[in-house]
Amino acid sequence: MDAMLANPAHGNAARAARLAARDGGLTRPTAGVARGYMQGNLAILPSDHAADFLRFCHLNPKPCPLIGVSAPGDPGIPSLGADLDIRTDLPRYRVWREGELVEEPADIVRWWRADLVAFVLGCSFSFEQALMEAGVPLRHIERGTNVPMYRTSIDCAPAGPFAGPLVVSMRPLRPADAIRAVQITSRFPAVHGAPVHLGLPGLIGIRDLARPDYGDAVPVEADELPVFWACGVTPQAVIAAARLPFAITHAPGCMLVTDQLNISAAAF
Amino acid sequence: MDAMLANPAHGNAARAARLAARDGGLTRPTAGVARGYMQGNLAILPSDHAADFLRFCHLNPKPCPLIGVSAPGDPGIPSLGADLDIRTDLPRYRVWREGELVEEPADIVRWWRADLVAFVLGCSFSFEQALMEAGVPLRHIERGTNVPMYRTSIDCAPAGPFAGPLVVSMRPLRPADAIRAVQITSRFPAVHGAPVHLGLPGLIGIRDLARPDYGDAVPVEADELPVFWACGVTPQAVIAAARLPFAITHAPGCMLVTDQLNISAAAF
Repeated sequence: MDAMLANPAHGNAARAARLAARDGGLTRPTAGVARGYMQGNLAILPSDHAADFLRFCHLNPKPCPLIGVSAPGDPGIPSLGADLDIRTDLPRYRVWREGELVEEPADIVRWWRADLVAFVLGCSFSFEQALMEAGVPLRHIERGTNVPMYRTSIDCAPAGPFAGPLVVSMRPLRPADAIRAVQITSRFPAVHGAPVHLGLPGLIGIRDLARPDYGDAVPVEADELPVFWACGVTPQAVIAAARLPFAITHAPGCMLVTDQLNISAAAF
Repeated sequence: MDAMLANPAHGNAARAARLAARDGGLTRPTAGVARGYMQGNLAILPSDHAADFLRFCHLNPKPCPLIGVSAPGDPGIPSLGADLDIRTDLPRYRVWREGELVEEPADIVRWWRADLVAFVLGCSFSFEQALMEAGVPLRHIERGTNVPMYRTSIDCAPAGPFAGPLVVSMRPLRPADAIRAVQITSRFPAVHGAPVHLGLPGLIGIRDLARPDYGDAVPVEADELPVFWACGVTPQAVIAAARLPFAITHAPGCMLVTDQLNISAAAF
């Protein structure tokens, strides 16, 4: 895999990662793959639901920062990669019927239909890179675990069948790092942007930080504040709850690697 | 006073405020005067101490953001106002000998000497205006009291005789407003910039928020975090502690009103 990434015939490291996924050489989660390139959450929905989902993204930009969308039936999204094929270029997918997981395939060629629309949403890997480059320590990465995520008491603005609570990820930070993290992530609105909350988890309906709804708990030390960002699990949970007849998402951690540089998403 | 501010012969509202102070028509604190124009803290020191104090400002830019400095003996600072006279244009001054207050005159013409250097440091009025314009409520302003200020356990970087603890101001904010306040004040490094700390006051040596070292206490509600900014009282306390043979400062709240717009200090 790393050898494939280094193959100059594959172009940049992001394209190499997509081609490796396409060829079956990359089947693991994409954390740390093609560092510096923006990765995205994937949702594929029948076109009947496209307008409602686009409106949902528009109404809830912090959990659902839309960075790419395909035309119905078109597996390409040239703005994210010239020869990108959304049916093959992720390491693993999840196929859903009526909100139930039915398969976790390495490609979705046999599931593709002329009415499907692919949505790509920014993910926190981009801002985590910026935080780490600035020397802000991220405990879940140091521990090699998944970031802890929590359902909140904050409702997303609904659109058609899409409704549900905001899900947030949490990173414990010392106060000065929390301030720095607000500054850094504010620069990246396309990948969830600034935190939505910090300190005082009870105010957003989180009763016990040690029991996340998704991911793995991390300790919050006495000299740290929990800092909360809107999370891309929000649209995944909303899509599952909508119990659509048919939907496809990325498998957890198996993101789309795009040709866009993380730094190209910086607003200033 | 307000009539004088409106007199077009006095030019802009900032110049009008300076001329009013010069003429004796403005003797009260300058909060709310010439809204939109940057105000500054004043310190006047013998030139023997100028290099050490400039180095102190350089080493401690958050409490000591230098926005203007005069040549020795020159009462003008053209960059802050074309015809500004630092000896007369503040409503009230404090004259110090060996760290003791000896007079609180309306002008310092009779105290002026050929070896004096004037330093003007940015003040929080500028970022408070930006916060209020963004709808962030500031309790001490709502209550008409002075902002609460605290000596911290954080030592400033010393320079010559200038040394002492960082003094911070505190504004209680709900978490979402605290995040917004970090974003807004980060734009204004010349007027103290981003907070230095938030939540967990014990970590910076503050034992009881209800007992500020300067200013007036304000309540911090259960859904709020205390947010701390570096404060212009820091250099005042440092100068007093240095017990210089001679120094002049502004009287509390009686700032220099400059011709620079607050918004001109925005970094982005």
